[in-house]
Amino acid sequence: MKQAPENPARRANLREVAALAGVSLSTASRVLSGSYPISGATREKVVGAMRELGYSESRTRRREATRTIGVIVPDVRSSLVSGVTAGIDAAAAENGRICTIFPTEGDLDRERDIVRLAARQRELDALVFVGGMQRVDDYSERLGDYLTMLEDVDARLVLCARPGDTGTHPAALRVGYDNEGGAFAIASYLTSKGHRQIAWVGGYRNQSTTEGRVLGVRRALASHGLELEAVYTDEFQPNVNRRVRPVDLTYANTRRLLEEHPEVTGIVANSDFHAVEVVRALHDAGVDVPGDISVVGYDDNEVAVQVRPNLTTVHLPVFDLGWEAARLAVEKPLPGMPGSTIELGTHVVVRDSVAPPRA
Amino acid sequence: MKQAPENPARRANLREVAALAGVSLSTASRVLSGSYPISGATREKVVGAMRELGYSESRTRRREATRTIGVIVPDVRSSLVSGVTAGIDAAAAENGRICTIFPTEGDLDRERDIVRLAARQRELDALVFVGGMQRVDDYSERLGDYLTMLEDVDARLVLCARPGDTGTHPAALRVGYDNEGGAFAIASYLTSKGHRQIAWVGGYRNQSTTEGRVLGVRRALASHGLELEAVYTDEFQPNVNRRVRPVDLTYANTRRLLEEHPEVTGIVANSDFHAVEVVRALHDAGVDVPGDISVVGYDDNEVAVQVRPNLTTVHLPVFDLGWEAARLAVEKPLPGMPGSTIELGTHVVVRDSVAPPRA
Repeated sequence: MKQAPENPARRANLREVAALAGVSLSTASRVLSGSYPISGATREKVVGAMRELGYSESRTRRREATRTIGVIVPDVRSSLVSGVTAGIDAAAAENGRICTIFPTEGDLDRERDIVRLAARQRELDALVFVGGMQRVDDYSERLGDYLTMLEDVDARLVLCARPGDTGTHPAALRVGYDNEGGAFAIASYLTSKGHRQIAWVGGYRNQSTTEGRVLGVRRALASHGLELEAVYTDEFQPNVNRRVRPVDLTYANTRRLLEEHPEVTGIVANSDFHAVEVVRALHDAGVDVPGDISVVGYDDNEVAVQVRPNLTTVHLPVFDLGWEAARLAVEKPLPGMPGSTIELGTHVVVRDSVAPPRA
Repeated sequence: MKQAPENPARRANLREVAALAGVSLSTASRVLSGSYPISGATREKVVGAMRELGYSESRTRRREATRTIGVIVPDVRSSLVSGVTAGIDAAAAENGRICTIFPTEGDLDRERDIVRLAARQRELDALVFVGGMQRVDDYSERLGDYLTMLEDVDARLVLCARPGDTGTHPAALRVGYDNEGGAFAIASYLTSKGHRQIAWVGGYRNQSTTEGRVLGVRRALASHGLELEAVYTDEFQPNVNRRVRPVDLTYANTRRLLEEHPEVTGIVANSDFHAVEVVRALHDAGVDVPGDISVVGYDDNEVAVQVRPNLTTVHLPVFDLGWEAARLAVEKPLPGMPGSTIELGTHVVVRDSVAPPRA
């Protein structure tokens, strides 16, 4: 165990608790929230560190929270979004802020109404925009309008877990992750196991998260002189009809893939959620995973260890992304200055859904 | 297909679209949100009904949304909570409202700050409290305070998916579900398959949702002259330390159960989430599900069909609960009058995690 801070009278924060316990910030928060299974040993370490640092006691010396951090999310049911939001909320609580979440359902008019409403509230530290963005021509202009509204009330705009935003909005703060790098790494893992015929399934081709991931896979394959055998994505059509989105046809797409590309031995899915559907479709077609076809996901969310086989995937630090976004909201570094942009890493988590292709 | 409404100029709502398409409200919303896999045929039906009713077109004749529905949730990562919230948000959008979600992490001081803050906002229709409540002595008084604050700004208080609240707060509006009845039904299903040695695993014994479910199981067994062999729950301790909750020891509890009660052939888990952990623990101990031990869940969330075996469980209409709560928020029936309390049913969904006990 590391040493406790020297001045015990100072209010300890959760990051210090995690460091002392030798666990991640996310694990420490999970012990606090009690909403995930944690081993008894880990829990003891965290609770011990909290006692040592007087963490829970410091929580009782509270003042009324009145300042808020607003969070704009496309969909409350997305595990990426709820993980990030949990991180924002935990950091908000640490800093005596109230976290307010606004779902947009991907409706840009609604998003604008929300920003206008939020900017009218007093004591708003920042609006945090969570998750990938649609490729819409005027989105850059929209963000410019939002920034103006927020500046009027001295609030910041933070883009969080939003691949593809770089350089377009110098006045925004940013917390990103290596979206393309994660895809590069997991595709490289597949090739290292001997896979040469690889396909992509899931996501929206005009959404920045999917776009970056497909790019990462293509780069990894290109370094072996390979190309993606096939790409099965849907199109998000905000301007045709912003409410009717093409549904997730992952299951059907996987069945099509089996017919159209029988040579494929490895599938990269857009997310763990998509990977689960791919595996279901393969099982239902009598295809063994990973015996016949290997499947990898992205995000490393809960479902990855709940399904069989457990999914090999890319770990995304969702909780930490949210935590850092809330920190930027509170600390308000100047946009463009050091510390105003944070990039977190991703890494491959090897589990049971990949095997070498059959000879 | 049912007939379209007579006056096509009137703005069609999603409920009418669902009725015309012959699908549930929840399915229609999933087609809209695109965040769940839906079969192509179902999608076609819903989109066809939208076109016929001019649904999406009516969405473009919008006014700026300024009124809000506030939603108080314990945890954004809970599937029950996110399902209910999605329903609230969809109905809010239908009615030109913005949905604002406030997570409390089960911290009652934070909850009070949030209510105070929300009540200071202009144009608040209602605060909806989602999910089970802790058994705290003064909670009834707290709710009374909240009601006073909200009355001052002419906003309502709606209790949603919160078992055990009945009768305590006559001024609140309510949308509930038959929590105890669902547990009664699923336990009866186990006994109908021949199970006589049944145990309970998961949840907090001092939380109203778990409390009601255990009661329902006990009632079902009592009608056969049976009792629960064992109950493995944790304790939520808000007054000792409201931030450090006992972690979910479902996995460890299941292993203990195997040692302490080898006679058990059926396990009722507090939720699907808990059931997944029970099944994991059993598998890891070399116990086959449902061959050796049958397991049932509660909630019927996504994970129930993602794991193997698919879980037999109690279906909870989470989306509809949220939808109805938002409707009460907008329509504001008088508390205590007809229509101010809505109770939705639950039912057993039979899948693959139950078999007769070995002879």
